[in-house]
Amino acid sequence: MTKHVKVAVIVGSQRKQSINRQLANALKGLAPESLQFIDISLDDLPMYNADLEPNRPDAVNTFVAECARADAFLIVMPEHNRSVPAVLKNAIDWGSKPMDKNVWRDKPVAITGTTPGAIGTAVGQQHLRQIMGILGSAVLGGEAYITFKPDMVDANHQITDAGTRDFLKAYIDRFANFAVKLSA
Amino acid sequence: MTKHVKVAVIVGSQRKQSINRQLANALKGLAPESLQFIDISLDDLPMYNADLEPNRPDAVNTFVAECARADAFLIVMPEHNRSVPAVLKNAIDWGSKPMDKNVWRDKPVAITGTTPGAIGTAVGQQHLRQIMGILGSAVLGGEAYITFKPDMVDANHQITDAGTRDFLKAYIDRFANFAVKLSA
Amino acid sequence: MTKHVKVAVIVGSQRKQSINRQLANALKGLAPESLQFIDISLDDLPMYNADLEPNRPDAVNTFVAECARADAFLIVMPEHNRSVPAVLKNAIDWGSKPMDKNVWRDKPVAITGTTPGAIGTAVGQQHLRQIMGILGSAVLGGEAYITFKPDMVDANHQITDAGTRDFLKAYIDRFANFAVKLSA
Amino acid sequence: MTKHVKVAVIVGSQRKQSINRQLANALKGLAPESLQFIDISLDDLPMYNADLEPNRPDAVNTFVAECARADAFLIVMPEHNRSVPAVLKNAIDWGSKPMDKNVWRDKPVAITGTTPGAIGTAVGQQHLRQIMGILGSAVLGGEAYITFKPDMVDANHQITDAGTRDFLKAYIDRFANFAVKLSA
Repeated sequence: MTKHVKVAVIVGSQRKQSINRQLANALKGLAPESLQFIDISLDDLPMYNADLEPNRPDAVNTFVAECARADAFLIVMPEHNRSVPAVLKNAIDWGSKPMDKNVWRDKPVAITGTTPGAIGTAVGQQHLRQIMGILGSAVLGGEAYITFKPDMVDANHQITDAGTRDFLKAYIDRFANFAVKLSA
Repeated sequence: MTKHVKVAVIVGSQRKQSINRQLANALKGLAPESLQFIDISLDDLPMYNADLEPNRPDAVNTFVAECARADAFLIVMPEHNRSVPAVLKNAIDWGSKPMDKNVWRDKPVAITGTTPGAIGTAVGQQHLRQIMGILGSAVLGGEAYITFKPDMVDANHQITDAGTRDFLKAYIDRFANFAVKLSA
Repeated sequence: MTKHVKVAVIVGSQRKQSINRQLANALKGLAPESLQFIDISLDDLPMYNADLEPNRPDAVNTFVAECARADAFLIVMPEHNRSVPAVLKNAIDWGSKPMDKNVWRDKPVAITGTTPGAIGTAVGQQHLRQIMGILGSAVLGGEAYITFKPDMVDANHQITDAGTRDFLKAYIDRFANFAVKLSA
Repeated sequence: MTKHVKVAVIVGSQRKQSINRQLANALKGLAPESLQFIDISLDDLPMYNADLEPNRPDAVNTFVAECARADAFLIVMPEHNRSVPAVLKNAIDWGSKPMDKNVWRDKPVAITGTTPGAIGTAVGQQHLRQIMGILGSAVLGGEAYITFKPDMVDANHQITDAGTRDFLKAYIDRFANFAVKLSA
């Protein structure tokens, strides 16, 4: 029997029409049955400030509890100035503390992202790769930089281009294999 | 006559007793007369979201206008998970847009920071060095990673240890020389 | 029955008295039985130049064949100017080509290193973490930055300080667990 | 009278038909008169090994002396596994030691590079930006990632595409302005 892995999906953008949300939804549709997805929202998280630690806001507690229940993470991010968007970095920082309850540690993480530009978030993803690695996550190796085109994802969350779809299918299958092994 | 350079001081922490604020204040006291400092607050900036761009909040407009008037920047940051604190990344992102009004471009920037740990923000500063370089800033070369000790800065904003004081004095003098040349 | 994992040990220094070699040897002594180690030498590799590809030197072929037979890698590196030593980067580049025979892909990798300084290779390791991740390796999460002291390793390859020994023992056990799962 | 700046050109490839050499030559042709160029070869440098320091090979002494005479550096690099080619990292390491004779310190540095791929060396340049910054160089801000096309540079070292030529002309002019100010 295949082990089922509960994957929390985190999108590093709060835009209503987020293209990274579109990519995340398409990836969910391509994934094998071994992965079960849950979307996690970053919308209500206040800016991290250690002075708030003695009384963590409710939104923080909810976010951290959801992450703690996940076996693995799929992070889909835009690139803001060739680095991690503040909204995503902020969520990671909340989830990392206190150190002995760091929700990222020892969990498989896949990182991808999309922008309209040719670089496709390649530079910014490296900062996230480093941060998650330092926090103890098992970051999936390889590269998945996606140059967004207006019709890349259709209304049914399907990738329209066959080459892109095959690439993303292979990517999410590879993550499933990785996450299942590490969750054994 | 020495050119005066208007340096905006940005501290990447909102903690009331921020040790990086203490370091920033001490550096101001050590600086030569060619540098004139103004503190810039990050306190009221909302989380960056491109959907807000058509109607930027007042706090954003104030922050950006203050940065635009500066000739140079002194950024003093803690290290959050070996990277840039979200509150600082967020401010940089607001200041960088729209691209043709990027407030960081062509301006001299000094980066330093302090933590109680031995690494002294060395890892996290590299992300900021990259981001500011990409945005077109002239980042001062060299390294200034400061391991904080409880009595490092006294109540009069003086560095108590002679070795640390000499190091920081040389560092801020070097920045002054760099910023004066580039502002010529 | 525990799966045995064949771990190739790569030390990023050619110094005769390399402190990173000392650290690597000590780690081998602390490892559980599930890990079997083989030392791989970088000594005779010429500088990478794509013009040499049509006729790879023998030393390259030997190195690549040894890496290809390994299930996993333990890389122990000094920090040269806060980045990867050229001798190590050179070896990685040889092993990565041609792309369809990339020896690093899908293999578990542990990265550590030591220097006499307080930063303990923390900055330089991030470049290696990124490079190996991009090449498809599964890089062990977490941090192992070791500040070298003259008596850290004794003549029998034992770590003399109990705290350092416990830290390194936990680190290599964690790698064994990771590598065994991924090699299943 | 305009100050003349002596710029050492370093190409991070030893290939006979190096496309980065082609880009470097084209940039020299586009530069204003304030920049005077000298090519520096990396061809005969042995792999860095601190054990060689007491008797540095002649090729090292020649390379270091040439760099020491330069006022500024133009570094044009391919991207090897999204990082700095070993041959370039090796040269930088030789030039950085001993620390009090570090040839890179306080000198303006421009970094660019080309590959056939869409990312155009964007990821790899960040490692070099960090390393040179840490070594005390004044790294020119901004981005210059060049996707190579077979006819990009003609036999007379001219950039054939007007858009690319204008971009590179603006880039080298900006470097000239930066280097002249800092060399004042």
